[in-house]
Amino acid sequence: MSLLIRDIQVDRDVTQIYVEGNRIVEIGKKREADTVIDGKGKVALPGFVNLHTHAAMTLFRGWGDDLDLSTWLETKIWPAEARLTPDDVYWGTKLACLEMIKTGTTTFNDMYFHMDAAAKAVKEMGLRAFLAEGIVDLNDPERAAKQLQTAEAVNRRIEAMKTDRITPVLGPHAIYSVSKDTLVRIRELADKTGSLIHVHLSETKREVDDCLVETGMRPAKYLDSIGFLAKDVIAAHGCWLDPSEIDLLAHTGTRVAHCPISNMKLSTGQAMPYAALKEAAVVMGLGTDGAASNNNLDMFETMKVAALLQKYAHRDPTVLRALEAFELATLGGARALGIDAGILGADRLADLIIVDPRRPELTPRHDDVSNWVYSAHGNAVDTVICDGVVLMRGRRVRGEAEILEKASAVARDLVSRG
Amino acid sequence: MSLLIRDIQVDRDVTQIYVEGNRIVEIGKKREADTVIDGKGKVALPGFVNLHTHAAMTLFRGWGDDLDLSTWLETKIWPAEARLTPDDVYWGTKLACLEMIKTGTTTFNDMYFHMDAAAKAVKEMGLRAFLAEGIVDLNDPERAAKQLQTAEAVNRRIEAMKTDRITPVLGPHAIYSVSKDTLVRIRELADKTGSLIHVHLSETKREVDDCLVETGMRPAKYLDSIGFLAKDVIAAHGCWLDPSEIDLLAHTGTRVAHCPISNMKLSTGQAMPYAALKEAAVVMGLGTDGAASNNNLDMFETMKVAALLQKYAHRDPTVLRALEAFELATLGGARALGIDAGILGADRLADLIIVDPRRPELTPRHDDVSNWVYSAHGNAVDTVICDGVVLMRGRRVRGEAEILEKASAVARDLVSRG
Repeated sequence: MSLLIRDIQVDRDVTQIYVEGNRIVEIGKKREADTVIDGKGKVALPGFVNLHTHAAMTLFRGWGDDLDLSTWLETKIWPAEARLTPDDVYWGTKLACLEMIKTGTTTFNDMYFHMDAAAKAVKEMGLRAFLAEGIVDLNDPERAAKQLQTAEAVNRRIEAMKTDRITPVLGPHAIYSVSKDTLVRIRELADKTGSLIHVHLSETKREVDDCLVETGMRPAKYLDSIGFLAKDVIAAHGCWLDPSEIDLLAHTGTRVAHCPISNMKLSTGQAMPYAALKEAAVVMGLGTDGAASNNNLDMFETMKVAALLQKYAHRDPTVLRALEAFELATLGGARALGIDAGILGADRLADLIIVDPRRPELTPRHDDVSNWVYSAHGNAVDTVICDGVVLMRGRRVRGEAEILEKASAVARDLVSRG
Repeated sequence: MSLLIRDIQVDRDVTQIYVEGNRIVEIGKKREADTVIDGKGKVALPGFVNLHTHAAMTLFRGWGDDLDLSTWLETKIWPAEARLTPDDVYWGTKLACLEMIKTGTTTFNDMYFHMDAAAKAVKEMGLRAFLAEGIVDLNDPERAAKQLQTAEAVNRRIEAMKTDRITPVLGPHAIYSVSKDTLVRIRELADKTGSLIHVHLSETKREVDDCLVETGMRPAKYLDSIGFLAKDVIAAHGCWLDPSEIDLLAHTGTRVAHCPISNMKLSTGQAMPYAALKEAAVVMGLGTDGAASNNNLDMFETMKVAALLQKYAHRDPTVLRALEAFELATLGGARALGIDAGILGADRLADLIIVDPRRPELTPRHDDVSNWVYSAHGNAVDTVICDGVVLMRGRRVRGEAEILEKASAVARDLVSRG
């Protein structure tokens, strides 16, 4: 199957994008194609890569805001998550995929539970996803064995789907919820299978303080001391990383997902040290985090708040410029996940979006990148193509009404069980 | 003329809103009306009040981001503003009004230049506005006399338009750009005419430090010492207010406009001390600031970033809850400006919006207010009514294409003059 997007703006030029199968073959000449999309007046951009989320937490959107973290987790989220069924996760992930498509995300890196149900949702919705079954052993060896077994079984079931778009990942939740033995076991598994590892790291000061008390080391140092850090690790948050930890991340090739909105909403207290991580050439991307702590999955908004938070925290308006925010949200995330996406070019994956700039908030057009980062929201996205397949055109996504209805019903039921 | 919005959700109930002229007459019974709007499945909210902006700066959107404040002002904004014509301001304000209507704002408090041209734009677009001709005398008595004369003339021309919706305001720019004599003269004028005063206050640390050097007092104390502060003053920003200044604002009844996005983007270095201002019962609202330092006029986004910034700055996720953000953006701004709006009820101004919640990012609906504040963007707004007149229905605004085209042309021309 071939696809031509004609008369579309790419960077500053109006050109043609020709796609065969799941790759961009050429940007330049007009060619015959099975499907032709008229891009006149519109702009093509790489699809966004959401480097840290918990997709099915859309079901908890707006359910327990403005609470301190432990109250929120202990009285709201954990009891409800204990009641989660695969069907909940399926519909929550469908809703998240729908929202991501409508706001221009083509790839996401997810950690949650019942991830084979999430994979089914992703397969149907057409996105590219990296899915990690969350592992939380709470230092209980029996629980650890069971969780690892579950994670391996889930990952095998995801692999059996034989969809290039969906990659199983190992998901140890965090150093405070997973024992050293389990972390070591996960490192061995990753080395054996080639899986990526998705983990929370240095989100709160309490995590750092507790780690210092228990191990005498800061979190990244502790992980390095057990041989855990490597370029297959995607560490979410990194708010409290100190310079010695940043060196470790740089030397081991560990990737970091910045989640500015979640960090601000939950008051993690310190912003990820972006300038130092950039200086150390750590590969970084942006994540929305789950919808319960954001509360949307719009990467346009996350680009803007990333720039705002870093400027504010560094007391310097020149930190994290618009183009850097845009690159973090696209190429940065793609590099972190090792996919050939995040930029438009020949031989790259055909993961792209078409934006319609004829909107008041995108007028005038002194600087398009500035407009995408500081002015736009996801509703500027007209068309989404992932893996060479058109998932949205003219803002219409197949099955939208059913997803809204089913996800609403599942969410209502979920919070009233118990 | 009468208007009925039938079967619409107001708070938690589905009801009817009946409007006659520019007022809501009743919320409850179904009545006969000249115009009937079907609100089935939708939600009515008060229109937003944008308490601090520079509307025509939409023309500079994206033109000079990521610069430090003095470079931005000295190399970009001021030279371009020196070339501003009334026609520029007219089209820039039209564009701003269009964007505000499309994102649910019904009232804005503006300070800029050529404000009679702005008034013409507002009159045509149908919004409610408070318009202040910016006064910047740079301690030059001759310039001061001329600027005051211009401001008075502009305000007389605005009054001659005889539109209830548009109120002329006095606009001394800030303590560092306006001399003491002029500030005193403006206070006298306000006492004589009953005009509101719109001023920038305590935006940057430099403003505070310079004021301490020059007067031995902090900015609010200095303004109070010359009798300037009163309940007719709307002070924008207030980032660096200290407890003694907060007391002065509370005792004099001075209002404060919080502009979180602009403060973060320009790295003013400190967040407005919201908790202390709330404790002192200072009347507060939210502002977007101009589009050159935000870069949009979407009050949904400003509500969210206000909550995020305050939670982050106070290191407390319970600070500035969703409902408080919503009330700041509606009733707070209305109280600051002394208008009978910002809440839906009988005898209130018919300034209201209709939101369509059937969107992925607004699903599920555990808590509508949380969804408006943390998940929604302006594109959720379906219908806007200001002063009893329908300005947008089904997201269509009269003249949109022409405004986008003319404002684009004017903006291109403006930055290439010189």
